[in-house]
Amino acid sequence: MKTRAAVAVAANRPLEIMEVDLEGPKAGEVLVEVKATGICHTDAYTLSGLDPEGLFPAILGHEGAGVVVEVGPGVTSLKKGDHVIPLYTPECRQCKTCLSQRSNLCTAIRATQGKGVMPDGTSRFSCDGDPVLHYMGCSTFSNYTVLPEIALAKVREDAPFDKICYIGCGVTTGIGAVIHTAKVWPGANVVVFGLGGIGLNVIQGARMVGADRIIGVDVNPSKRAMAEKFGMTHFINPNDVGRDRVVQAVIDATDGGADFSFDATGNTEVMRQALECCHRGWGESIIIGVAEAGKEIATRPFQLVTGRVWKGTAFGGARGRTDVPKIVDWYMEGKINIDDLITHKLPLERINEGFDLMHEGKSIRTVVEY
Amino acid sequence: MKTRAAVAVAANRPLEIMEVDLEGPKAGEVLVEVKATGICHTDAYTLSGLDPEGLFPAILGHEGAGVVVEVGPGVTSLKKGDHVIPLYTPECRQCKTCLSQRSNLCTAIRATQGKGVMPDGTSRFSCDGDPVLHYMGCSTFSNYTVLPEIALAKVREDAPFDKICYIGCGVTTGIGAVIHTAKVWPGANVVVFGLGGIGLNVIQGARMVGADRIIGVDVNPSKRAMAEKFGMTHFINPNDVGRDRVVQAVIDATDGGADFSFDATGNTEVMRQALECCHRGWGESIIIGVAEAGKEIATRPFQLVTGRVWKGTAFGGARGRTDVPKIVDWYMEGKINIDDLITHKLPLERINEGFDLMHEGKSIRTVVEY
Repeated sequence: MKTRAAVAVAANRPLEIMEVDLEGPKAGEVLVEVKATGICHTDAYTLSGLDPEGLFPAILGHEGAGVVVEVGPGVTSLKKGDHVIPLYTPECRQCKTCLSQRSNLCTAIRATQGKGVMPDGTSRFSCDGDPVLHYMGCSTFSNYTVLPEIALAKVREDAPFDKICYIGCGVTTGIGAVIHTAKVWPGANVVVFGLGGIGLNVIQGARMVGADRIIGVDVNPSKRAMAEKFGMTHFINPNDVGRDRVVQAVIDATDGGADFSFDATGNTEVMRQALECCHRGWGESIIIGVAEAGKEIATRPFQLVTGRVWKGTAFGGARGRTDVPKIVDWYMEGKINIDDLITHKLPLERINEGFDLMHEGKSIRTVVEY
Repeated sequence: MKTRAAVAVAANRPLEIMEVDLEGPKAGEVLVEVKATGICHTDAYTLSGLDPEGLFPAILGHEGAGVVVEVGPGVTSLKKGDHVIPLYTPECRQCKTCLSQRSNLCTAIRATQGKGVMPDGTSRFSCDGDPVLHYMGCSTFSNYTVLPEIALAKVREDAPFDKICYIGCGVTTGIGAVIHTAKVWPGANVVVFGLGGIGLNVIQGARMVGADRIIGVDVNPSKRAMAEKFGMTHFINPNDVGRDRVVQAVIDATDGGADFSFDATGNTEVMRQALECCHRGWGESIIIGVAEAGKEIATRPFQLVTGRVWKGTAFGGARGRTDVPKIVDWYMEGKINIDDLITHKLPLERINEGFDLMHEGKSIRTVVEY
């Protein structure tokens, strides 16, 4: 079949809207009509060419929602018409990691996914007979895409695609970091570095689980109002307190340090501040942001020996097929706010404007509707 | 009263055996006759002058066992004749940290302890009228010493002082890192970097809780036999596999990485290896060793984002008054081996020989008996 798609033909070039060829689903695979997709920093990072693992030509996009059109042989958990969210972190429930019950980082299709192909080693996309690669196993910048069954979360049918697509990455990453990775407890003091789309979801996750103080740190004072709407109780601007005084400012605001801190900036110096502002004895710092290739984090080991814990999270520690449908429920029940985070909507033809809005800091999330 | 003591008169000078004056216990304090004390690397580190917080003149020693001689006003949990182990990490059960139930790093007397004085701001030791400082709140290199009630663990009276003194630091640090900080589970794969006194206690702690593979890493092949006696199942010598191949060697020996790793070397490069050999998704690395002042640990944040956890431990996460008596019981019940770790015994007059044995790598633990 043919499908419209925004194709990343090469690094650091605008996406090109075109028709590409799409093969139908093979065994264990599912054809999905994507109804909406968010544009995430990770797409921009790969498109920029800075991602050493980025491959071209490819169809980017990993934050979508849509409907099952056709299932391949052997697919048992999904049928035509099911509403689904694609999962860049699948959940096979059979690999060593899934069975460990200690991590969401399913390894079932990791090797092929990283190479931009399906588990059988080939791509379903092509253009003029030449393969076009998949991206993060999702490729939601195509109106139709094919995914493995284990990489699709089945969700309720009354949930709007143009909102729940954001659960495919940003919402789950932020809220999951709070509830799955950190396991923030009621009454905890929480600090969030970076008040973008991820940081705001950390904030509302912290509010949802009953955190006491929720401190936001950002150099941009215009982020304050939205963060307060999502539950932030205190705001620290490093430019006001002094960049080398941020750690002390958090310690002062939390009676000795944060119980939990989250880095949602990707800046390795900020990651260090996030660790060092944690409370002696038990404070845990969670790295969410993706750092530039080659950058390292550092601290004195004394910070850990005196009880701080340094962790990271990917996809918020969420097991996609199990946890994503619950987050969709929470949205539908009004426990979390997604509507206010989706600041812009565009048709596929204008998808490059969505990248511009992100780079200019004008959007929290732009959603493309097909 | 007068007491014999080995006094650190200045940095990088041998201890001097002399009589010093000791004031009796004030309110909340306890006079203890030290019966035996171990010599620990931390004593040597301070004596060397490299410890930026080291103060002189002082009476070092923090790994002792003895008998209560006299209690000051208000002391309720101890009486004359009780057998005790001094605690450099006290347990007040009233401070924010103790009440948090999330950490053993009681802060009740931290400020004064760090300055070498009792909680009232003065020293009980003096020489010719000039104060001699306490050390780590213990000063077990004196035959008699005074400690706060909250810094003494009451232990059973049939336990031999010349063995259980080692529980005052090394044994508890190693075993506690396994059971309190890491919470190693039965069947886990464990790797221990550094097979000295701490590393051997990590190994026997891992054996006690039912770990599967227990891998020891040390550049000194002569450590192998003793480590195997304590439960090590595999030995890796970085000089054999190549220092830049240690991480891969551990991953190969553990089907993907260690569930838990422990650094007992104090070397920040080794600490990085210990983290990076942990299993993707859930492996936890625990820093036990004390690094040189100013040294930093570093890694790529990707290591944490893909599920590894970096932690540290002090006094094995043990709450001294609660947990130390249990470890004494375990020794008396034969669940742990201390006898083989105490390779040398000396009278106080020859204490400096104990430091020499340690520096020469000839001893695991030297115990001084009064």
